[in-house]
Amino acid sequence: MTNTLRIMSGNANIPLAKAICAHAGVELAKCEIVKFSNENLKVKICDSVRGQDVFIVQPSCSPVNEGIMELLMMIDAAKHASAKRITAVVPYFPYVRSDKKDEPRISITARLMADLLETAGADRVMTMNLHSPQIQGFFRIPVDHLLAGKLLIEYFKTYGIENSVVVAPDAGSAKRAGAYAERMGLPLAILDKRRSDDSENPVIHNVIGDVKGKRAVIFDDEIASGGSMLEVVKALEHLGVTEIAACCVHAVLSGNAAEKLQKSSLNKLVVTDTVFIPEEKKFDRMTIISVAELFARAIMYTNMGTSISGLYDGY
Amino acid sequence: MTNTLRIMSGNANIPLAKAICAHAGVELAKCEIVKFSNENLKVKICDSVRGQDVFIVQPSCSPVNEGIMELLMMIDAAKHASAKRITAVVPYFPYVRSDKKDEPRISITARLMADLLETAGADRVMTMNLHSPQIQGFFRIPVDHLLAGKLLIEYFKTYGIENSVVVAPDAGSAKRAGAYAERMGLPLAILDKRRSDDSENPVIHNVIGDVKGKRAVIFDDEIASGGSMLEVVKALEHLGVTEIAACCVHAVLSGNAAEKLQKSSLNKLVVTDTVFIPEEKKFDRMTIISVAELFARAIMYTNMGTSISGLYDGY
Amino acid sequence: MTNTLRIMSGNANIPLAKAICAHAGVELAKCEIVKFSNENLKVKICDSVRGQDVFIVQPSCSPVNEGIMELLMMIDAAKHASAKRITAVVPYFPYVRSDKKDEPRISITARLMADLLETAGADRVMTMNLHSPQIQGFFRIPVDHLLAGKLLIEYFKTYGIENSVVVAPDAGSAKRAGAYAERMGLPLAILDKRRSDDSENPVIHNVIGDVKGKRAVIFDDEIASGGSMLEVVKALEHLGVTEIAACCVHAVLSGNAAEKLQKSSLNKLVVTDTVFIPEEKKFDRMTIISVAELFARAIMYTNMGTSISGLYDGY
Amino acid sequence: MTNTLRIMSGNANIPLAKAICAHAGVELAKCEIVKFSNENLKVKICDSVRGQDVFIVQPSCSPVNEGIMELLMMIDAAKHASAKRITAVVPYFPYVRSDKKDEPRISITARLMADLLETAGADRVMTMNLHSPQIQGFFRIPVDHLLAGKLLIEYFKTYGIENSVVVAPDAGSAKRAGAYAERMGLPLAILDKRRSDDSENPVIHNVIGDVKGKRAVIFDDEIASGGSMLEVVKALEHLGVTEIAACCVHAVLSGNAAEKLQKSSLNKLVVTDTVFIPEEKKFDRMTIISVAELFARAIMYTNMGTSISGLYDGY
Amino acid sequence: MTNTLRIMSGNANIPLAKAICAHAGVELAKCEIVKFSNENLKVKICDSVRGQDVFIVQPSCSPVNEGIMELLMMIDAAKHASAKRITAVVPYFPYVRSDKKDEPRISITARLMADLLETAGADRVMTMNLHSPQIQGFFRIPVDHLLAGKLLIEYFKTYGIENSVVVAPDAGSAKRAGAYAERMGLPLAILDKRRSDDSENPVIHNVIGDVKGKRAVIFDDEIASGGSMLEVVKALEHLGVTEIAACCVHAVLSGNAAEKLQKSSLNKLVVTDTVFIPEEKKFDRMTIISVAELFARAIMYTNMGTSISGLYDGY
Amino acid sequence: MTNTLRIMSGNANIPLAKAICAHAGVELAKCEIVKFSNENLKVKICDSVRGQDVFIVQPSCSPVNEGIMELLMMIDAAKHASAKRITAVVPYFPYVRSDKKDEPRISITARLMADLLETAGADRVMTMNLHSPQIQGFFRIPVDHLLAGKLLIEYFKTYGIENSVVVAPDAGSAKRAGAYAERMGLPLAILDKRRSDDSENPVIHNVIGDVKGKRAVIFDDEIASGGSMLEVVKALEHLGVTEIAACCVHAVLSGNAAEKLQKSSLNKLVVTDTVFIPEEKKFDRMTIISVAELFARAIMYTNMGTSISGLYDGY
Repeated sequence: MTNTLRIMSGNANIPLAKAICAHAGVELAKCEIVKFSNENLKVKICDSVRGQDVFIVQPSCSPVNEGIMELLMMIDAAKHASAKRITAVVPYFPYVRSDKKDEPRISITARLMADLLETAGADRVMTMNLHSPQIQGFFRIPVDHLLAGKLLIEYFKTYGIENSVVVAPDAGSAKRAGAYAERMGLPLAILDKRRSDDSENPVIHNVIGDVKGKRAVIFDDEIASGGSMLEVVKALEHLGVTEIAACCVHAVLSGNAAEKLQKSSLNKLVVTDTVFIPEEKKFDRMTIISVAELFARAIMYTNMGTSISGLYDGY
Repeated sequence: MTNTLRIMSGNANIPLAKAICAHAGVELAKCEIVKFSNENLKVKICDSVRGQDVFIVQPSCSPVNEGIMELLMMIDAAKHASAKRITAVVPYFPYVRSDKKDEPRISITARLMADLLETAGADRVMTMNLHSPQIQGFFRIPVDHLLAGKLLIEYFKTYGIENSVVVAPDAGSAKRAGAYAERMGLPLAILDKRRSDDSENPVIHNVIGDVKGKRAVIFDDEIASGGSMLEVVKALEHLGVTEIAACCVHAVLSGNAAEKLQKSSLNKLVVTDTVFIPEEKKFDRMTIISVAELFARAIMYTNMGTSISGLYDGY
Repeated sequence: MTNTLRIMSGNANIPLAKAICAHAGVELAKCEIVKFSNENLKVKICDSVRGQDVFIVQPSCSPVNEGIMELLMMIDAAKHASAKRITAVVPYFPYVRSDKKDEPRISITARLMADLLETAGADRVMTMNLHSPQIQGFFRIPVDHLLAGKLLIEYFKTYGIENSVVVAPDAGSAKRAGAYAERMGLPLAILDKRRSDDSENPVIHNVIGDVKGKRAVIFDDEIASGGSMLEVVKALEHLGVTEIAACCVHAVLSGNAAEKLQKSSLNKLVVTDTVFIPEEKKFDRMTIISVAELFARAIMYTNMGTSISGLYDGY
Repeated sequence: MTNTLRIMSGNANIPLAKAICAHAGVELAKCEIVKFSNENLKVKICDSVRGQDVFIVQPSCSPVNEGIMELLMMIDAAKHASAKRITAVVPYFPYVRSDKKDEPRISITARLMADLLETAGADRVMTMNLHSPQIQGFFRIPVDHLLAGKLLIEYFKTYGIENSVVVAPDAGSAKRAGAYAERMGLPLAILDKRRSDDSENPVIHNVIGDVKGKRAVIFDDEIASGGSMLEVVKALEHLGVTEIAACCVHAVLSGNAAEKLQKSSLNKLVVTDTVFIPEEKKFDRMTIISVAELFARAIMYTNMGTSISGLYDGY
Repeated sequence: MTNTLRIMSGNANIPLAKAICAHAGVELAKCEIVKFSNENLKVKICDSVRGQDVFIVQPSCSPVNEGIMELLMMIDAAKHASAKRITAVVPYFPYVRSDKKDEPRISITARLMADLLETAGADRVMTMNLHSPQIQGFFRIPVDHLLAGKLLIEYFKTYGIENSVVVAPDAGSAKRAGAYAERMGLPLAILDKRRSDDSENPVIHNVIGDVKGKRAVIFDDEIASGGSMLEVVKALEHLGVTEIAACCVHAVLSGNAAEKLQKSSLNKLVVTDTVFIPEEKKFDRMTIISVAELFARAIMYTNMGTSISGLYDGY
Repeated sequence: MTNTLRIMSGNANIPLAKAICAHAGVELAKCEIVKFSNENLKVKICDSVRGQDVFIVQPSCSPVNEGIMELLMMIDAAKHASAKRITAVVPYFPYVRSDKKDEPRISITARLMADLLETAGADRVMTMNLHSPQIQGFFRIPVDHLLAGKLLIEYFKTYGIENSVVVAPDAGSAKRAGAYAERMGLPLAILDKRRSDDSENPVIHNVIGDVKGKRAVIFDDEIASGGSMLEVVKALEHLGVTEIAACCVHAVLSGNAAEKLQKSSLNKLVVTDTVFIPEEKKFDRMTIISVAELFARAIMYTNMGTSISGLYDGY
């Protein structure tokens, strides 16, 4: 059997898939994805994958649930077309926030996603900055968990971090924020969110640590509606920080999140291209760092059977 | 362990689920389905299902792929909430037309759906008029395959079938149409569709059998965009039929299908409520026959361990 | 690990296996199959298959159920002997007519067969002209579904098809017959079989389409007892056809089927060698077209990891 | 769900199944087993088994491989007909002598059989006197392993065992024979079989222990062609025993085994009815002890959830 | 099938199992666990469990790995003895700190443990205060995750919490500590641990938040060697707290941990009895709160099919 | 993917693993095994195994149950580190005496071990002289079952076997002893063990066959506490043998077994190094034959895909 590398993509983030292909020096394999009038999809892989080493790039992007079906169908098609090995490349993994059962009778959907990928026929998964590192344990197939932290910190070191403090938006983020703080040699502060008497949503109630007169840097794994970020920005302004930069790996930016952030006092937003960002959501103070080269290297090393643990060296 | 019957529903076709509950004499169990700004769903079953016999009603309705995720998540939630048995009640099964590999490197998605339901934790499936009866073989869990044919034929006998001929829209439908023709004691005719020189889509090229001066009755399992139906109607008009009635179990009616059919010379359209039909798609010559009682009986008999083979007596 | 191609055979159709080997340029691997006095079989693969690419040829031939056990045991033996990949080559698949649950409490045995092959350890299946294309969906392992249609049509074009009509023996065969008719540019006619008042078996009751004065060509996937075929032949004679040719992929020819067909007015019978045909069942008007080269190419391409979709181009 | 006990049978040993039903006080459930002209079987369970506790009686009897397919199909049919629990009752288990890999590249078919039963859908197995007790470990589903030893010893105690010696036909049987000897308070002797220079089959070469002037009793799990038994009988005669009795649980009696034994100097043959024994194979000195009551009790206790470990008290 | 509740225990924490039984009003079922001279264990369940609802209590206690084998063997024995349902009751789950792959080529052993329990035959798991809530997602079988927080907080409220601050020993514990702080209406402080230049182990480097002159309360899920706790105690003393109380659910107390803690300035240690604490490890300032009643209620409710979500109401 | 051979070892028998590596011409791969204070293990494979052919050497040695966990964790780590194939090399397999269910409600733990290895991710197993050959049937993955008999017999032929008799310590060992006797051309005698009235343990009660004045050779698969062996030695002395040699593949030698044997009249003890034997357990009359070369060859042949059936030629 051959060991031919074949990279293909669903509709989720074709520019990223193409950038990965460019770094890997291969053409994006041709697939045909049709949506019939009854909303049923049809996926057809146009060229033979028999005995080949197939990577399917499909991060969680809008429309999310349709993208999941696309991915499952592409895996199924590749399996029944006798691919030798199928790796689902899902830089932003869907449903990562559903990683625990914090209420009765809910679904740990990130775990369900792992099961569905395996059922469809994925032999491996490659992903990036999962919401919690335990999610790797949801898989019975090998997972390569790449980390964008190194790229982000390099950027920030260039950007300038004098007189900065890393701020965790809540206690749950303290661990991640602490790791960044340690790597950058910066102090840490934590916003203490609590539920007041009758409200269901916790609000920022206090800061633990010193932020006044400092430049705040916030690290998070994803930014969705932007609501929490705006709240943090307001709180930090109120606490007397001199500048606020935020850094999120996965730029979901749902609804008018981009617009709201642009209008806020956020001085800098750094994100990656794991999620496709349409032109209209980009703005001046937003910097997009590409993860394409990192994924391309991970894919090539995997195809060749070379260790990729070097690529994990992030946070 | 108790044997309590619990019926719940996703967002696909709540009126049908409520009608089934009314016939079964139980309340629809309360579920909370939230769609977050990042399009991730959250499903929560509000009351205990521990040790209960759970039926989740979710036919394939628009938005189809989101409905599938909802169903999988509800099953997963019920399983981890320790339901005793989980039956996915899917009156119109998704992706039934993807039931064979008639091109290389495509997915037999109806089979993938069967696998996904089983992976999520379904113990049984209840469905109706699958596009091909072989689809039952895609499941490793028991399937109850109900049939609407009896209800439809009863309706037509009342409507009047003198001087009628059953028309199969193409050779592939001849078997189903023939079964209806035999049951109704009517003759059969078949439209012969063929590909002309350069076109990809086959067109009606001939009729096999006699239709002139007769009333045509067309039986099909689903009606989606209505395009094929309109083509059949035109061909039959041209062939000199005096009246055209169509009867389809699953009324997908995507896009402006309802409008096109209303404007056509179709004299009668008979469908069921397996798929939710919004008010704006209904029209005078359309008759909707409810399958709720049939499903309610199948669910109650299953819960009690009584044979439901009597309910299969259709086609 | 090596990629050595190894073809072996049970007792079902050794001449076909040898013909495949001849086309593939390899020796048939030696196996020892013993039947003990208590009817228990013993299968021994005589040479090492460690790390090899094993193909086991075993179509469904008489004795059918013993042949199935032989096949399962050969797969099991090859698996535990550390074969790298095991492909069950089953040109005529057993129990294909048991592909749906058209009565309550029966087994969809074609599906059970798929499960049993997978349990025994088959990694892939290669087969030909399944009774219904949906059967491919019964497998969770890749299936290569070869089609004999091209070979058969080529034969018929040489034989002469002027003034012919393709006849479907019943409505259920109309789809397959229609596909042949379209490919050959011939008209289609369908025999309409119905149950009369008290009888259980449907009888030919009518013809839909024109056959009088024409040469009839019947295409079917298999011919077993020959009973239906004889009935069709009689009906066509009665309807005034001038000549009758029948073409069936799988020549089961059970009991005295061959004798009955030979004595009938059937002018031509064309079959393949997927099922072993003993000398005493052959007769003058029967033509046997070998599928050995087609299977040999599919096996070699699979072994080399080359696309075999070209070989599917039939019907 | 109900807990109704339902016992059904394939064609292997209907008299045993009926005797079990008589002891259990239930009717044998009606099944229809058809063999088509192409040797494909069709199994139909005639009455509802939905939610019932189904026991399918099918020991390994001639035709063995067809009986296996029947059993697998009945299990599959019962599973898809929504039986609550399915127990395969296989008093004589097929392929028990294939319980180890004593040559390279053979199948441990008893293990394969366990896997096939589980794949078809059996939830439990009930069997008797397996060739080796380790075979129970081949199953991932619970097995009830009944033992006939108590019935056999009771018989022999009545028959008379003064001046007797238990003889193991070879070293491999010494353990089983020793257990019987200990239970009956008799001495043990072992025939020492060895391969001479060129022959492949070991021959009796010596006796270890004293047999001269004694009455020999031989215990074995099955008697197939009778060849080994005849050899033992001849050797014991030659060694000067005064009387020879043999006792085997499973009376396969293939070919003319019964005739050969009848013509031999064997004074007594005691067997059970796990395998169906046709009238023409019975002879005067043969005594058949029924295991029906034992199985009936095991089935009833299993159905009621009562311990059956009392029924294991044998050897 | 009966629904009899049967609780049994391995050797890990028999006092806890007995206390659970006392609360549940049943006798602890008798099991025989033998350790042979070759260190192989033998587990025998002494009374019938056929059709019963079996709960096996076996938290992770010393010797840990032997206890795991005991648990797996008890589950296997119960499964093959035809228990109706088997729940592994593992109040302190083994290998919970191995819940992520934070170095290349290590095992996520908590996940492996989940797989092993399922393979052995567990139908459900009941556990308490997992190190991270995501571990629930490692299971494909239902998990009941009880929480001891309520019991602990109740205790502390009685003990007195005026002028207290909840201290998280590191950023990774901030989320858990924050939840306790919120529930108790106390402020939160976090110790900031960092790696200095050459050392591999992070050391306490700073405190974030105010602790001086306050009473510190530390919440953690487990206390093993006590090393980290001592370090925290020293740091807090140095930072000027007036009193230090620690509260840990799982009192592993390995080696001389108890002695070290007793000699430290820790004013109070509150633990539960999920792990067996021998007399010699107990000391005056240690309070042990029993979780037996909570588990007894969860077991009884599960047996009866009643919702236990009320018992989750902790943290 | 590469085909690099990688041999690693847990803590069970590092000298054997190193000897195997020496014969195979590779370095033992570096692994880090840490035991934390809470007895939880951590296993880390130090170098990349991505796409490699991994063999993990871990026979059952003291501490047995910890060694099992080590092995399972190493397999899990290798699987998630993307090894291409993982072979568990377990020269002495744990729990082999638990190979049948000879009492109700016990675990067939050898079978459970097979399942656990498969669950952890082993693709194959390599082992030696299983207690019963049926244990091979417990695995669904290929097993290479090496045999030490040839090495042992070669040794004995050199040692001298004139006037010897092979003695089976009980009827259950007669088959194995008989096979050695046949290979060595020696007579066979069997010790007949029986339970006396009240005692639970059977005692030697008689010898079947002639031993007086002969040299006795005892073959067994393992020697654990040495108790049975001492009893045999005493009985044989009493029966007048002139010399006693014992030969056991697996030298468990638990507790003071070595000391007891050394003090007995046993003239010779021959064992292999499948189990690690510390210096203090060795004594003059003990000879240790290494199986390292045999395993090295089996590993190398497996890695290269060459037949290893030649290495099975033992007993």
